[in-house]
Amino acid sequence: MTTSTESPSTTDATPAQGEDLREQVHDAARRARRAAGDLALLNRDAKDALLHAMADALVERGSEILAANDLDVAAARQAQLPESTIDRLILTTDRVTSMAEGLRTVAGLPDPIGEVVRGNVLPNGLQLQQVRVPLGVVGMVYEGRPNVTVDAAGLTLKSGNAVLLRGSSSAERSNTVLVSILADVLRAHGLPAESVQLLPCHDRASVQHLITARGLVDVVIPRGGAGLISAVVEQATVPAIETGAGNCHLYVDAHADLDTALRLLLNSKARRPSVCNAAETVLVHRDIAGEFVPKMVTELRSAGVTVHGDRRVADISGVGASNVVPVTDEDWSTEYGSLDIAAAVVDSLPDAVEHIGTYGTGHTEAIATADIRAARQFSARVDAAAVLVNASTAFTDGSEFGMGAEIGISTQKLHARGPMGLPELTSTKWLAFGDGHVRPAG
Amino acid sequence: MTTSTESPSTTDATPAQGEDLREQVHDAARRARRAAGDLALLNRDAKDALLHAMADALVERGSEILAANDLDVAAARQAQLPESTIDRLILTTDRVTSMAEGLRTVAGLPDPIGEVVRGNVLPNGLQLQQVRVPLGVVGMVYEGRPNVTVDAAGLTLKSGNAVLLRGSSSAERSNTVLVSILADVLRAHGLPAESVQLLPCHDRASVQHLITARGLVDVVIPRGGAGLISAVVEQATVPAIETGAGNCHLYVDAHADLDTALRLLLNSKARRPSVCNAAETVLVHRDIAGEFVPKMVTELRSAGVTVHGDRRVADISGVGASNVVPVTDEDWSTEYGSLDIAAAVVDSLPDAVEHIGTYGTGHTEAIATADIRAARQFSARVDAAAVLVNASTAFTDGSEFGMGAEIGISTQKLHARGPMGLPELTSTKWLAFGDGHVRPAG
Repeated sequence: MTTSTESPSTTDATPAQGEDLREQVHDAARRARRAAGDLALLNRDAKDALLHAMADALVERGSEILAANDLDVAAARQAQLPESTIDRLILTTDRVTSMAEGLRTVAGLPDPIGEVVRGNVLPNGLQLQQVRVPLGVVGMVYEGRPNVTVDAAGLTLKSGNAVLLRGSSSAERSNTVLVSILADVLRAHGLPAESVQLLPCHDRASVQHLITARGLVDVVIPRGGAGLISAVVEQATVPAIETGAGNCHLYVDAHADLDTALRLLLNSKARRPSVCNAAETVLVHRDIAGEFVPKMVTELRSAGVTVHGDRRVADISGVGASNVVPVTDEDWSTEYGSLDIAAAVVDSLPDAVEHIGTYGTGHTEAIATADIRAARQFSARVDAAAVLVNASTAFTDGSEFGMGAEIGISTQKLHARGPMGLPELTSTKWLAFGDGHVRPAG
Repeated sequence: MTTSTESPSTTDATPAQGEDLREQVHDAARRARRAAGDLALLNRDAKDALLHAMADALVERGSEILAANDLDVAAARQAQLPESTIDRLILTTDRVTSMAEGLRTVAGLPDPIGEVVRGNVLPNGLQLQQVRVPLGVVGMVYEGRPNVTVDAAGLTLKSGNAVLLRGSSSAERSNTVLVSILADVLRAHGLPAESVQLLPCHDRASVQHLITARGLVDVVIPRGGAGLISAVVEQATVPAIETGAGNCHLYVDAHADLDTALRLLLNSKARRPSVCNAAETVLVHRDIAGEFVPKMVTELRSAGVTVHGDRRVADISGVGASNVVPVTDEDWSTEYGSLDIAAAVVDSLPDAVEHIGTYGTGHTEAIATADIRAARQFSARVDAAAVLVNASTAFTDGSEFGMGAEIGISTQKLHARGPMGLPELTSTKWLAFGDGHVRPAG
């Protein structure tokens, strides 16, 4: 469920140890719940001052962070973790500065708490308003990146929530130092250190205890690979928000401007292939396939992208079989996260919509077209968190969307869909003010 | 999980039959999903015409409905189901008319679909908007009342969703006729009959198949007793919305106007004791307990309410031990649903908040007070879907809150909290319109 560095000694824990771990997680959740009671009442000034002080402390104590991180990285190298994992794990002075800047950015965002979402006076004079309140206790389950520790703490604190962090064991030393710095700042501001807690990360059972702590934890948000996310979402009894899996498509319509389509395709695929908003499949309308496919294959290949084409793509691209790898059924559902793309020729816009409905993950889908009817049809019929017309899939992102920061991108339909910023970390409460109002019988 | 009329012959189903049932439920969900694609594109005029035609058909074909209902009621009597269950099951001409009126009310409500929730033009010129879209396929799991069948169909159709209904086996004949009438109207309007489907109700495994049909069903909403709700919420892998459990409190503050408090108490408890917004516990501040408690006990008793009092309530009420039943620990967490109330004297407002935090279900909590600081403190610190100041708990209700109708009252914090009307049956989708916008590297 997490990275491959799980300690085998603790997964062999005896039942008594298992019970201890459960109690330890639940106890952390109970302390977080008490802390959340205090956090819910903080005004914006207090929260922003806290975040700025945390940013200062991270920078001041950067050498402690880097020393701990060095040990994590050395252990990861020794355990021969993949280079990509190590890359995500490594902190540098720049990365620490950028975590601190992230906190300052969140401090600069409007406080969602207390916002009146709806309100009116009922015919009987009862004054009614629905206001934003914190969720309470947020559980985060994530993988190697230590910056998630700080990002999640900043967003949850600003939205008045306490947070339980369950990071990867490979980042344990880094995360421990980061959380202890944040806890010191909380204490210095007269706030409970239990507002931000790191859970034990050597036994995957701690994830299980966190995601089943109904009544103690209000929501869990998994952040990481598809395996982690679906394991959490399927096993959680605490409400969970599904994030991130992005099998995104670009559909090049019969009426697309082909230069525009090419530019969108390259940006959607190759800008940052490892992120969830990168395109993984391109669907080309048959009417323009003869002209577009050869250009597309050439441009993609010169950007280092391997094209996994269906029979029609291979036939058209022509320049030689070596240009296009034959696509497999599995490719259509694969989130490559790499410089690979699946490609098909489709007979119509409805066929493209059908393909996307079958294989898409409901993250981001884009169309290139100059035809307003095609744009309207595509955006109405495609069921995804974000549908983009003549724009790169790379735009689905909290900061691009003007949210300032995001805790993840929800691909589910309940509560939040798409990039999740501060308002998505809140719930609401109805408040009614009367003068002794009673409800008539009936 | 449902009523006690489960057929023993089908719960003894062989594995092959079990597999069949699973396939049957999943197949219904797949057909619902296709229907949902059509429903999502309907405009308000079409949906309202559909609901009015459904209302007409229910009234016209009332005798068919009542004939089927007679058979359900006769079977329930023969099975010696409790009178309260039979009461909920019985339909009359008036109740059929009122179901039809319910559909017309929903037709009169604004269409939530297409509403632009947020929108702006990004600095780079990309036009961004977040619009309301249907959830897709909604699963309803409920108990004996056949009117839920029609209410749920009306609300889900108006919000552009398809619905899978899993009612009680005791109402099977009534529900079958109701759904076939609705299906006839759907067909007559050129819409897929699979938009509203009744699932097999004789085997509780059909609930299990429904609530674990991830990817086929977008949300399940249980409606009924606490046992049903928690079973669904705990076993569902499809996102579920927890509804209804209401252990509601009225806190009578030191600065309450005692006549007002008495009026609120009687209305909160005795107006309709069986509904989820009825008060189940009254907490009285010690400073006014000497005056208030004897009055309260007298008035409650003359309204037929049994008071389960703590030691201090019993001591103060004085008129005789027979006036007050000793409260047990269990009473504090009990949703009586009857003319019973638990009562305690508390030392302070924070103690009342603490008691509510420990035993409340996060549904509705009320305070009677003339002190603005107490009102502010109570409404800020109590964590519930609705907090009422000087108003009866009976107001927490979709139609009272001006939503026109409700599909349930959510007691969870994600997605929807409090009465759920049409907007709560929707999700959102981000739409972005560009002119070939690509995202710069970085």
